[in-house]
Amino acid sequence: MDKIYSLEFLQSFTTSLLQQIGCSNADASLAAEVLLSADLRGIDSHGIARLSGYVRLWEAKRINTRPDIRVIHETPSTAVVDGDAGLGLVVGPKAMEIAMEKARIVGTGWVAVKDSNHFGIAGYHAMKGLAHDMIGMAMTNASPLVAPTFSTERLLGTNPIAIAIPAGEEPPFVADFATTTAANGKLEILQRKNQDAPLGWIQKKNGEPTTDAHALKAGGALVPLGSDREHGSHKGYCLGAWVDIFSAVLSGANYGPWVPPFVSFLAPSADPVGSGIGHFFGAMRVDAFRPADEFKSHMDKWIKRFRGARPVVGQERVLIPGDPEREMAAERIKSGIPVNEKVAADLEELASRYGLSL
Amino acid sequence: MDKIYSLEFLQSFTTSLLQQIGCSNADASLAAEVLLSADLRGIDSHGIARLSGYVRLWEAKRINTRPDIRVIHETPSTAVVDGDAGLGLVVGPKAMEIAMEKARIVGTGWVAVKDSNHFGIAGYHAMKGLAHDMIGMAMTNASPLVAPTFSTERLLGTNPIAIAIPAGEEPPFVADFATTTAANGKLEILQRKNQDAPLGWIQKKNGEPTTDAHALKAGGALVPLGSDREHGSHKGYCLGAWVDIFSAVLSGANYGPWVPPFVSFLAPSADPVGSGIGHFFGAMRVDAFRPADEFKSHMDKWIKRFRGARPVVGQERVLIPGDPEREMAAERIKSGIPVNEKVAADLEELASRYGLSL
Repeated sequence: MDKIYSLEFLQSFTTSLLQQIGCSNADASLAAEVLLSADLRGIDSHGIARLSGYVRLWEAKRINTRPDIRVIHETPSTAVVDGDAGLGLVVGPKAMEIAMEKARIVGTGWVAVKDSNHFGIAGYHAMKGLAHDMIGMAMTNASPLVAPTFSTERLLGTNPIAIAIPAGEEPPFVADFATTTAANGKLEILQRKNQDAPLGWIQKKNGEPTTDAHALKAGGALVPLGSDREHGSHKGYCLGAWVDIFSAVLSGANYGPWVPPFVSFLAPSADPVGSGIGHFFGAMRVDAFRPADEFKSHMDKWIKRFRGARPVVGQERVLIPGDPEREMAAERIKSGIPVNEKVAADLEELASRYGLSL
Repeated sequence: MDKIYSLEFLQSFTTSLLQQIGCSNADASLAAEVLLSADLRGIDSHGIARLSGYVRLWEAKRINTRPDIRVIHETPSTAVVDGDAGLGLVVGPKAMEIAMEKARIVGTGWVAVKDSNHFGIAGYHAMKGLAHDMIGMAMTNASPLVAPTFSTERLLGTNPIAIAIPAGEEPPFVADFATTTAANGKLEILQRKNQDAPLGWIQKKNGEPTTDAHALKAGGALVPLGSDREHGSHKGYCLGAWVDIFSAVLSGANYGPWVPPFVSFLAPSADPVGSGIGHFFGAMRVDAFRPADEFKSHMDKWIKRFRGARPVVGQERVLIPGDPEREMAAERIKSGIPVNEKVAADLEELASRYGLSL
């Protein structure tokens, strides 16, 4: 049974907890907003469910709650930010703000980040530009769970890409997706229910396809978007590799199999190739290309045409990227956020350990 | 039976032919280089096989061989280029050069192009930055052959993305892929051989999956990378949509179902939403992020680790994006370029019509 909490309550709880582990009030409140935006939009794997994981990483001294986040290299349109082992939930928004500031001045801004940690949902960061008529992009690498095409080894994370594009009367276009066939969060749901996965999501230790949702524990791997070579998995591999290189080789973070694990019980690599995990952010002023009103009215036309396309039998309509998450957010603002009972127990434990009430 | 020609001969033939239809010597020679780079790298669908198509579009007055290619809007890091209905093979390199020039000054350059035509392989343009220690990106929209997830209508092209990243001792990372499960060129090969397609490449007019390689003629469609919703086709749809919006909504070109067809026997839309087709180019100086030598030595390490991963049974090794095309180019420089007999007959016909010898 899920427990239901209001967004405000979970934000306030998260803020208090992050203050307890040393975050400034402003950082704690920002991080809580970023974290809960995942639950709000229905991406439950990336929200409050991860709070205890962040705390355990802090307890293991792998997260610094008083980071000195700073630009270590820059040009008019680019920067590299050192996150100083801070929460990605705090480092991410600061880096995106730098990208937007550069875009204000020279049209676009591109910021690579090193020595960060998990930054919540990529979509949150990409969407920050929308209110300023900017296109936003965000990507991050992550601990290796994915085998490139033809590989038996896990060398890439689920490495998401998010892109948010403003429209006029229509809601914005917001894509946010793992570069694998299935996000790890979807696999975890099947694991909890002891159900099989569709063929094409995962492979066994030797690289053969399997439906066993627990195959990762036995040395298996998630596979890149496309599932197998015949269905274009080499393209998903290209996407995941691109995210890894932009996030970490450009910034000086760890890449590929060296990316440190999110879970505190697995040790980071003994011979790291960089610092922490990496992100990459982009901001493009729409009017660096054409007048914003003109752009937005064409986006409206684009969106209306696609949304109005004749759907296949059994589907009500063709979706625009961002539709399901926006509808979920509207629903959850009204009726609250369901929290899985295992996650709720985790929160209870945190609350009692840190003297908070849940 | 294929006919074999040398790269030099086909380049010289193409240059002469393009001069015959009005291109300047410099433009004809540039366009020939871009076009033949496809055959050289083994992407036969995008090279000399398309030459007669370009000529027929010129004959239909839909390509301007004396275009006034110019910047119509810019900021320090961005530009919009009006291709003036020129050959994409000429407009593309000029736009990429503008992106690189901006990158030299402010770190990165981003150029959206309107009123262009088919620009050959995206990879050619992305690779132009490599010699200057720049990461290059290129994307283009194309005539609608692809149905978004849940749509029965074809609203997107195969909309490729290319990204080229320099390395040190290792060859560069060069990804270049259609955002569909299978490129249209692969489908055409099956159509010529009257063979079935794998399930997951195409759908029938009503949206049901089919193996009939001729389904597009009966109102069917290619499907986005991922094949179906359960295997992530909504992510491929996001990618194709992203390419369409960057290439055309940012630039003022036609987007979605309004993109004009490459073939001269199909008329462009009677109510266009922009001019011609659109492209988008990016150039990022590596040293806008970190010293180039440092970046390249980490790319070498990345590449070696991935190439050295333990492969699945039946595969010799894990590939790095760009490996197959580079190996093909080395082979074809030595032994020549095989030209399908139907394409060779097309070239014979062009040669006789334009007074050239083949």
